[in-house]
Amino acid sequence: MSTVLHETTTAAASTGSTRKRLREGAFGHARALACRECGHEVELGPSYACPECFGPLEVAYDFPTVTREEIAAGPANIWRYKALLPVPSDIEQSPNTEPGFTRLLQAHNLGRELGIDTLWVKDDSTNPTNSFKDRVVACALSAARELDAKVFACPSTGNLANAVAAAGARAGMKTVVFIPSNLEKPKQVNSAVYTDHLVAVDGNYDDVNKLASEIAGEEEGWAFVNVNVRPFYAEGSKTLGYEIAEQLGWRLPDQVVIPVASGSQLTKVDKAFRELVALGLVEDKPYKVFGAQATGCSPVSVAYKAGTDAIRPVKPDTIAKSLAIGNPADGIYVLDICRRSGGAVEDISDDEVRDGILLLARTEGIFTETAGGTTVGVLKKLVETGQLDPTLETVVINTGMGLKTLDAVADRVGPAATIAPSYDAFVASGVL
Amino acid sequence: MSTVLHETTTAAASTGSTRKRLREGAFGHARALACRECGHEVELGPSYACPECFGPLEVAYDFPTVTREEIAAGPANIWRYKALLPVPSDIEQSPNTEPGFTRLLQAHNLGRELGIDTLWVKDDSTNPTNSFKDRVVACALSAARELDAKVFACPSTGNLANAVAAAGARAGMKTVVFIPSNLEKPKQVNSAVYTDHLVAVDGNYDDVNKLASEIAGEEEGWAFVNVNVRPFYAEGSKTLGYEIAEQLGWRLPDQVVIPVASGSQLTKVDKAFRELVALGLVEDKPYKVFGAQATGCSPVSVAYKAGTDAIRPVKPDTIAKSLAIGNPADGIYVLDICRRSGGAVEDISDDEVRDGILLLARTEGIFTETAGGTTVGVLKKLVETGQLDPTLETVVINTGMGLKTLDAVADRVGPAATIAPSYDAFVASGVL
Repeated sequence: MSTVLHETTTAAASTGSTRKRLREGAFGHARALACRECGHEVELGPSYACPECFGPLEVAYDFPTVTREEIAAGPANIWRYKALLPVPSDIEQSPNTEPGFTRLLQAHNLGRELGIDTLWVKDDSTNPTNSFKDRVVACALSAARELDAKVFACPSTGNLANAVAAAGARAGMKTVVFIPSNLEKPKQVNSAVYTDHLVAVDGNYDDVNKLASEIAGEEEGWAFVNVNVRPFYAEGSKTLGYEIAEQLGWRLPDQVVIPVASGSQLTKVDKAFRELVALGLVEDKPYKVFGAQATGCSPVSVAYKAGTDAIRPVKPDTIAKSLAIGNPADGIYVLDICRRSGGAVEDISDDEVRDGILLLARTEGIFTETAGGTTVGVLKKLVETGQLDPTLETVVINTGMGLKTLDAVADRVGPAATIAPSYDAFVASGVL
Repeated sequence: MSTVLHETTTAAASTGSTRKRLREGAFGHARALACRECGHEVELGPSYACPECFGPLEVAYDFPTVTREEIAAGPANIWRYKALLPVPSDIEQSPNTEPGFTRLLQAHNLGRELGIDTLWVKDDSTNPTNSFKDRVVACALSAARELDAKVFACPSTGNLANAVAAAGARAGMKTVVFIPSNLEKPKQVNSAVYTDHLVAVDGNYDDVNKLASEIAGEEEGWAFVNVNVRPFYAEGSKTLGYEIAEQLGWRLPDQVVIPVASGSQLTKVDKAFRELVALGLVEDKPYKVFGAQATGCSPVSVAYKAGTDAIRPVKPDTIAKSLAIGNPADGIYVLDICRRSGGAVEDISDDEVRDGILLLARTEGIFTETAGGTTVGVLKKLVETGQLDPTLETVVINTGMGLKTLDAVADRVGPAATIAPSYDAFVASGVL
């Protein structure tokens, strides 16, 4: 495929609210949007539902030959995998937050604590706005640019709002972030620093979401990252899988534990592993995929345990807000992947979430948010219940950072002693 | 130098409170600790003041030949420069936080705003505990290990406490962090999550510091990162300079703007640039170094403007707490470097610090803490006052992240509108 990028007369995408003439290579080696249910393909553009069966669309590719060396010669961010993403080959030239290639830490201490022989933590808390959302938003931003969107936008309460507001500022795009008006002030500030266009909506998150869909339908030229450019956005999560494999020395782990909100991340890590095998970049081997939820919002785990495919929507009630999606769009695919691979889906209580946060901080020096506490806590439960094999190499994903959900553990930790400023007082304190 | 590492009978360091037989190569290619004032050399060990003249000791090396290719083949963290640091060649085998190799972002928007042709932001907010302190602490941790320290420790109010507590947890070392007892609860939590040995001291930061020095003098086997292993610790800041040069494509910038607290970071970036030239890794060229302070704690800037070498200690009164060192140990060297290179030292008000935070967030999508707001605000002032040449390639360093000092801008930003959850309400709001 030519990497020369220029304006062509390629027909614009025929659906959605954003239209432009696409330049050649606007979406890299992506071929089409393909329906996950019926396989029907539509042109690349701001579409997200199959016109035949309303199934979800995802990006399909005609991949070129890609070598480990080419990838290793790329930048220390997600664009080292640009040949495998729906982005143009000159993506590095467009200002973006340059997320990814985060740490994969071998977790000796946590492994010892849990009785797992070989354990790794993939730590996405060190992304530009401190969550894995920077990956997906970077891919959505590229799509928004190539589709000539006028406005970059999202509805969100947390990590996504931060990531969109930051990426939009860096790209110099008009960026509108919709939040529920009762969102805590610190979380508002963490998005409002980046944009003049933070909009508070009197309603709950569902109301905010519905408003976003309405605007996406009514307005021309809006790119809502998780609505009308969602297929491009979702592909960003594949980079977590690519990085895990590359950082392990170009091989797949035996087991991987991933938090489940919409379920998109888990399905994309699995997709990434399969792509790497298909491309000959890693050896084929069996691996088990595990999903983690908080009990207060565990529709996928409930369905898994009931042995059914029917996911019953729930009203979330958990401190793990960034996992609190009561009706997860990709839940059905999560069930399929976890069952087919020999993994499982498990859930834990909010107290166990808090324990998970402290366990990871105390053992590996990683301060995670409630989503990460959920994943680590579920890892522990999976071992204890015999669902995860502690003799197999395991990777657990941390998706965000603890400063964003400080309250979750604020009452659980503190000074061991308060002393007068003297050596004698320190000795007398018995701290050591 | 042999890279075979084994126990030898090399004499232990003769000063300080931590003693052990050093293994060969414990400090890599470091040769000795050399006095910055008189040049007197002492053995590598837990010493920080010259026994001859009480000048500060810093690490001296016998560097091997190092190539760009060897460095590029290393990990995406500071250990890619291990041959240039006082660490053993097997440093990657010892659990540490793996900091560094953070983003160097070309700042088109901020450059345009300030009228600077070519501007880069070196963004250290994406380190493991979200500040540059992870770099220095990783080097201190290695020294503590090689010296067989029993306890890893620091006095701190902020970023350093976080970095030490996290690194100590990951290393599995007993870690004690001393803080003033009146430190705000969220800042306490951000260290207490990692360690059971947070000690609150009834007193101000000076009292806490004095207590730390007292314990370092009385106790065997304590490694206080910024006291008795300070020479090793300080070397970690060199990696900021190495990375800037490598990420620019192995060349030096024309101008670099660096915050000044103790002044150590600025002197080490300069040292790094000179080492790269000496090693033939970059071409020699003139570069100007600029220091940034907040007016409420600007002893170095005051001395610079007065044209004197006498730095008069001050009592800090600024929101830029992580720069609030009233009696900066390396201030005199900062003056020398900035004057000799044709740079300058400048300071700005707390309101300008807040402006700097928002300016960086709005233009580049980077949410920095007050220290970064200081540096960006000073950059602006340097251009406006004609002290910095806007036609020369410039790098500005961001040392930390905004969630840690959220209050600084909490009253300055917020929603543009609060609306009912309907499309009509959005249109009527006039947000766009």
